[in-house]
Order: sequence, then C-alpha cells, then structure tokens
Amino acid sequence: MSGGRLAVALLHHPVLDRRGDLVTTAITNLDLHDIARVSCTYGVERFYVVTPSLEQQALAGTIIGHWRDGYGAQYNPDRRTALALAEVVTDLDAALADWQRICGTAVMPLLTAARRNDGIDFAAARDLLKRQPLLLVLGTGWGLAPQLFDHGWPVLEALRGVGDYNHLPVRAATAIMLDRLRNGAQ
Amino acid sequence: MSGGRLAVALLHHPVLDRRGDLVTTAITNLDLHDIARVSCTYGVERFYVVTPSLEQQALAGTIIGHWRDGYGAQYNPDRRTALALAEVVTDLDAALADWQRICGTAVMPLLTAARRNDGIDFAAARDLLKRQPLLLVLGTGWGLAPQLFDHGWPVLEALRGVGDYNHLPVRAATAIMLDRLRNGAQ
Repeated sequence: MSGGRLAVALLHHPVLDRRGDLVTTAITNLDLHDIARVSCTYGVERFYVVTPSLEQQALAGTIIGHWRDGYGAQYNPDRRTALALAEVVTDLDAALADWQRICGTAVMPLLTAARRNDGIDFAAARDLLKRQPLLLVLGTGWGLAPQLFDHGWPVLEALRGVGDYNHLPVRAATAIMLDRLRNGAQ
Repeated sequence: MSGGRLAVALLHHPVLDRRGDLVTTAITNLDLHDIARVSCTYGVERFYVVTPSLEQQALAGTIIGHWRDGYGAQYNPDRRTALALAEVVTDLDAALADWQRICGTAVMPLLTAARRNDGIDFAAARDLLKRQPLLLVLGTGWGLAPQLFDHGWPVLEALRGVGDYNHLPVRAATAIMLDRLRNGAQ
C-alpha cells in the first residue's frame, strides 16, 4: 500500500463529446456516489466535482447534501462518510487552489486520457505521489479537452485491457487507477 | 497481462440486504452497462445477469436489447459490443452450465466477498485461471448469501483500501478485480 496525499477532480468542463466538440457534460448521480465511495476506500482526501454551470453546481450540491446532511445521512451513514469528501467547484484552478490550501504545499495535477500514448506509468506515478500531493484529474464525456494537456502537467498512462476495446466508464477507470496508485507493481 | 478464460456472474439472488436478510435485488441499469464495458475491456467472454424474477429478467432483456439490437446499437456501437456479452439467466447453476458448455471443459466458480478473510490472493487466482476457466461470482445488495460458500468453491480475497472503509460499489469492485486478475502482481 503506497502512501502520499491524493485528491480526485472529476471535470464536466472542458471535456469533449463523442464528436470531439468542447462541451459541458451533465452531472451523473452515480458518478458522484461511486467515485466518492472509491475515493473513501483508497484514502483520497478530497473529491472535487468540477462544473462551471450554476444549475449543475446546485444539482450536485443537492445530491451531496441529501446523503451528507439530509435523510440519506441517517439511512446510510457509509454514504455520508464517502460524500463528505465531495466538494463542488467551478473549475480546475479552484480545485487546485483548495487542495493546495489543504496540503499547505505545492500540489501537482496528474491528467488522465484513454487515447494518449505519452503517459507516465503507474510506478512513476506512485513515485511522484511519494514526493508531493497529487490531484488526479478525470474527464467525463469523451475525456479531457486538449487544452488541459498544454500545461506540461504529467499524464498517467492509459489503462489497457485485453484487445482493442477502450471504453471504460469514468467510474470504473477511477476505481482501477486508485487501486493501482495505492497498490501493486504495474 | 494474464490469459485464461473468464466469465462474470452478477447475482441478484441469493444475496443479503443491509439487515442480513436473504433477498432478491432489483436490476440496476448502470451495473449492466458498467460491468459489460469492464468485461469487454478485460477479455471476459460472458457476463451473466442472474435473477430468478421473470419481471426482472424481462427488464434486463429490454435494457440489453435496446443497446444490442435496438436504436442504441446504432447510436453507440461500443455499448453494443459490450452488451453482446450479457446473458440473462435464472440462477448460478444455469450460468455455470452455459459457461461450461461454451468452454467444453469443467469450469470453476470463484466467489467474492467484502467481509471474509479466508480468500485466496490474486496471485493464486491468476494461477487458477491459467489452469481452468473461471466464473467470477459477484453479489449485489450486501453480498452473496452464506449458502453459496458451502460448496467448497474458492473465494477471492477481499479488496482492501486504506483504512477501514469497506463499501465499494459492485461495479467498482468488478473493475478492480478484473484489472488485478489480468494484470499485476498483487
């Protein structure tokens, strides 16, 4: 089990749609629940739900509030624990600023992409995590917009299965990546 | 990447609810999609959706049919590819019989449980997979009913994260387990 301080950001903008256009995707209830629970399992300290849409921020706040403070908190305390990690923010900069404030030191974004070949492998990512806090950045829709890759931030190698099929749900990709960042020798 | 023939069964009965009672859970749309896509990614040959309820079998058939043969198949061919692996069956015996028929040789169930400590580790499970086809058996709700563990079938070690939180969604657990069964050295 590898240590190191880790946060997750799920971006609903800027991301691509299936045609490659820049869009803002809608919040998915199950993304919030699943990524919160996986984050809680793997010692992630913050889960940033990133969207510039005020309506979508309000929706995310309602879902999170139901399970954290509302009826759901009594009905299912385990979900309360998980969703206590969730924080709704406007953009990646806000997530980085908040995570940096919490850590009290410089933090590094670690981008993800299913269709790039220039990523660092998981062993290198675990080494990075030992040296400074990371923010694992995941895109909804058809993935993070190209402009995010212009900052020179490290990119995590794409997950590869058996054969050519390469369409993992972001919920599943997050689970596998966190498992590999905390465990193992891939 | 480890080879070996692998199928997945998602049981909606017999499983436990949060109070420990034996129940039949409802089909969850997202379970079908996510587990089909993860299965497709990791070279799983069949994904058995197991429920004794005729209404639930019909519902699962409708969801799968929409994406495999209906409008969804044109809209999103990647989902068609994934859901082509899905097969609705009445019970675990039917899943085992079908998987055995496909393989033409004896197959072994590999049970999963979040709250047992008697499982074989992933290295041992990968060895098992090299020797014979496996059926990875996952429970919805609060997990597989105790009676399933009376057959002497191997049980996979529980996934452990950082700390005590132990409430992964079955979708996430399936993704992590398949990644570990096909990769790595945990």
